[in-house]
Amino acid sequence: MKFSFVSLFPNLIEHYFCDSILKRAIDSKLIEVDFYNPRDFSDNRYLKVDSYQVGGGAGLLLDVYSLGNALEFLTQRYPRAHIIFLTPCAKLFHQNDSKRLSRLEHIIFVCGRYEGFDERILEFYANEVFSIGDFILTGGELGALCLCDSIARHIDGVLGNSDSLLGESYEDNLLEAPNFAKPYKFKNLSIPSEYSKGNHVRIRTLKMKASEAKTKYHRPDLYWQHKHKGR
Amino acid sequence: MKFSFVSLFPNLIEHYFCDSILKRAIDSKLIEVDFYNPRDFSDNRYLKVDSYQVGGGAGLLLDVYSLGNALEFLTQRYPRAHIIFLTPCAKLFHQNDSKRLSRLEHIIFVCGRYEGFDERILEFYANEVFSIGDFILTGGELGALCLCDSIARHIDGVLGNSDSLLGESYEDNLLEAPNFAKPYKFKNLSIPSEYSKGNHVRIRTLKMKASEAKTKYHRPDLYWQHKHKGR
Repeated sequence: MKFSFVSLFPNLIEHYFCDSILKRAIDSKLIEVDFYNPRDFSDNRYLKVDSYQVGGGAGLLLDVYSLGNALEFLTQRYPRAHIIFLTPCAKLFHQNDSKRLSRLEHIIFVCGRYEGFDERILEFYANEVFSIGDFILTGGELGALCLCDSIARHIDGVLGNSDSLLGESYEDNLLEAPNFAKPYKFKNLSIPSEYSKGNHVRIRTLKMKASEAKTKYHRPDLYWQHKHKGR
Repeated sequence: MKFSFVSLFPNLIEHYFCDSILKRAIDSKLIEVDFYNPRDFSDNRYLKVDSYQVGGGAGLLLDVYSLGNALEFLTQRYPRAHIIFLTPCAKLFHQNDSKRLSRLEHIIFVCGRYEGFDERILEFYANEVFSIGDFILTGGELGALCLCDSIARHIDGVLGNSDSLLGESYEDNLLEAPNFAKPYKFKNLSIPSEYSKGNHVRIRTLKMKASEAKTKYHRPDLYWQHKHKGR
């Protein structure tokens, strides 16, 4: 699967692929990444990449010409690629999206900067528009990396142990139960005795209860979905 | 303000500070960042940083000893620092948190890896625990960068134009209205004529309407909060 990033600052994010799971995925040719800078597509002699807003407003938008040229180039070269824009003004990205999108062949992430995009660029080129959460970042680069990372995990072979994908948070709208490792005693805190007794049916029951309690406490919204889907 | 990152893979994220707004903030001494690798704190002769789960379960946890040592070192050196853990099993990070946290002097971000943390490490060291969204990543590094980026924007002087912080998405639980830049005609799509007529009261009214419509469509949950807070 191929991931392309359209960003004014590829240098901020390309190193995210230089180690760990995603590097191994690249080395084993499970994924491929490349980067495109709208600045390289500017036909302005100052290589301008920002524009004033029509109608006023603080801050600049990404220049329609250079970003438009970059996207024109990419859509002609990769007509079947799925284009995702990252902006806070969009639906929230969810684990289910990451599973669904992991079946695609090529995703192009378009990262905002400054005050964001001219709305017409979105209307014309976007297949989907995502926000990663209710907070503002200096650019779309981190959002794009989050999507890429989360999607890549679902590609066969990327995670060494595919069992890791089971029982994770958000499966069934529940947060994962607490986990423990040795030592049995840490700072006077023990591991729940049931965990170390080895009765796996009991451990599973206990984990399910803990998982529900945790979700109810931290994320009542998710818990509600969990209960009502179960009925 | 200082941001410290505790991560097994600082090399994946340190380049995020090498350009653009956050680099300028570092150069002007508005923020400072450093990195700590639990591997450097392992007293195991193989520099082990992972552990099997007690009670079974796929995947490994971050080793309690090496991470514990790292946090012991940091809490002794920086007793007043605010320690934030990144894990999907937590409350969601929100723009309001980023404003609130921007008034602190020092935040230490602890990034999960593998199947996450031993619950007791969280209980003992965490001042707060955040998730950035309902999706799973290969590690907490991107979440930590998101928080850092979002928080840093609220520090005086980090954004060139502090007006940019006004009228952003999530202020008043609304997504930002569509923005437009020249050219007036792009791919046969025009800019709403009101935007280019220069009557700023009218533009503001139109933007508020568009903002509400957009929020209602993409984020009915936010829209509900907006309406009910307004009453």
